Amino acid sequence: MADLKVTCLAGGVGAARFLQGLVRVVSREDVTVVVNTGDDIELYGLHVSPDLDIVSYTLAGIVDEEKGWGVKDDTFSCLGMLKNLGCESWFNLGDKDLATHIYRTHLLEEGFSLSEVTAKICRSLGLEETILPMTNDRFETRILTDKGEMHFQEYMVKRGMRDRVLGVRFEGVEQAKPAPEALNAILEASGIIVCPSNPIVSIGTILSVRGIREALKKTRAKIVAISPIIAGTVVKGPAEKLMKGLGMEVSAFSVADLYKDFLDVFILDTADKKQKPRVEALGIKAIVVDTLMKTMEDKIRLAKVALSCL
Amino acid sequence: MADLKVTCLAGGVGAARFLQGLVRVVSREDVTVVVNTGDDIELYGLHVSPDLDIVSYTLAGIVDEEKGWGVKDDTFSCLGMLKNLGCESWFNLGDKDLATHIYRTHLLEEGFSLSEVTAKICRSLGLEETILPMTNDRFETRILTDKGEMHFQEYMVKRGMRDRVLGVRFEGVEQAKPAPEALNAILEASGIIVCPSNPIVSIGTILSVRGIREALKKTRAKIVAISPIIAGTVVKGPAEKLMKGLGMEVSAFSVADLYKDFLDVFILDTADKKQKPRVEALGIKAIVVDTLMKTMEDKIRLAKVALSCL
Repeated sequence: MADLKVTCLAGGVGAARFLQGLVRVVSREDVTVVVNTGDDIELYGLHVSPDLDIVSYTLAGIVDEEKGWGVKDDTFSCLGMLKNLGCESWFNLGDKDLATHIYRTHLLEEGFSLSEVTAKICRSLGLEETILPMTNDRFETRILTDKGEMHFQEYMVKRGMRDRVLGVRFEGVEQAKPAPEALNAILEASGIIVCPSNPIVSIGTILSVRGIREALKKTRAKIVAISPIIAGTVVKGPAEKLMKGLGMEVSAFSVADLYKDFLDVFILDTADKKQKPRVEALGIKAIVVDTLMKTMEDKIRLAKVALSCL
Repeated sequence: MADLKVTCLAGGVGAARFLQGLVRVVSREDVTVVVNTGDDIELYGLHVSPDLDIVSYTLAGIVDEEKGWGVKDDTFSCLGMLKNLGCESWFNLGDKDLATHIYRTHLLEEGFSLSEVTAKICRSLGLEETILPMTNDRFETRILTDKGEMHFQEYMVKRGMRDRVLGVRFEGVEQAKPAPEALNAILEASGIIVCPSNPIVSIGTILSVRGIREALKKTRAKIVAISPIIAGTVVKGPAEKLMKGLGMEVSAFSVADLYKDFLDVFILDTADKKQKPRVEALGIKAIVVDTLMKTMEDKIRLAKVALSCL
């Protein structure tokens, strides 16, 4: 696989765990990751990019492995003091993590794009992979619930996914352009992997950015996706609640169906092997393996399966 | 002293220590402090106001007593990560301390003035004293040295006061207006105390703000100053080097001389009792006591001496 250039579409924790395995099978410099920024939020004037940070911290080996986000061995002194100062403190920002947000915000204010800032952060963290935000433009995932419309983070973190989901809205989607290099990374890849991420608010946001879905249809690279849904549920995150709220069947098949206009191969879990014929009826090759990633061996094995499809 | 309204001019550590004693003798709500902002600096896009924070942290009882600045029991995780990200890290920002800067910067960006932000912070910290920045306008103390001109913090913290001082320049002094309430706090005070702070870059900056020196001359309140110079040197900070650099005699008398056009009483240390006649020759009443503040008793005693002059 000397000349393999792999482009991945990624959300947060699930994608990051998959990528940990991938970069042990493919040279790090041959991996490009296009990351969801719909979860980005401004807190205390700081620009927080949760998925970009989860991916870069994980690949840099500094992530809090247990939580899947944040920096390991972090302290939370600043958040406590912000609370004393009367600020909201529902978003659990560690002190080391804050450094990234402070640095990012400062560079954005100096006129750098989010792509450029992300590249600087990745370089400082010693990453050889290319990590791209899906867009440099304002893009905000809004969740419509029975308690009103709210930012995705408010729905997920502040209110703990307790509200009934009535819909999802992507604010800024009409204006948002893909980050420079993102379309090329799709068009010129030798293989594309859609990571096991939320199909609505992680991959769905990326696909909604103008030109990305078209590039995926146009590219000559094979495209493989890994189902984030196992046995009708998710390992982590709100995919199940969101899919239900949108009136969708919560299944691996549903995910394949969302990607059917560009997908070549779909990897689904052994627990969902009965869905193989339904996926194949969409014209997508279906591969059934164990997809749960508990150990590094699991991650490497899954990465190898994905690569073998490209 | 039921109706005593005391207005103090203050810099950082020396002033804060004096104020600790003062608010144990005068009701906290009767104390107004006009604080130097010439040391303010923007770091990583955050607005840091060292003297305002030293005064408010000290009066709130959360200061790191040993250092005299910063919040006690603070961690330094964020700074370490900022360093990893390639940022300069010579200004020792604790994580709790950072919360103040993040909050301040956020409110300033939302359009609040530094006075309003300071009032909010003080309220959150439970302070009953009124703390005012000397100005809400940009004002930057620049030190001219044999190694070039630099921000005061760069001279003091980054370069450890090792450069030869050739001059001091107050950038923004032509435009800077006093903070609202500052002039009134001087004109309507029943007594004014110039804290034992640096006469050049703490009190000197305050006095340079348009209208402040005139208000001090005009007010009917008695004005007492405490010498920051003891036996030809300072307890802390760069006063000695700056005074020397400006070709001044480093003495209590020199300080009194800088304030002579508005000062009624000057408190100098027993070690400097020989300077009493020189000070009195300026038309200023001179009081000789022990001025070194090691214990809370020292601070209270000195506060009582100052109050007895008003």
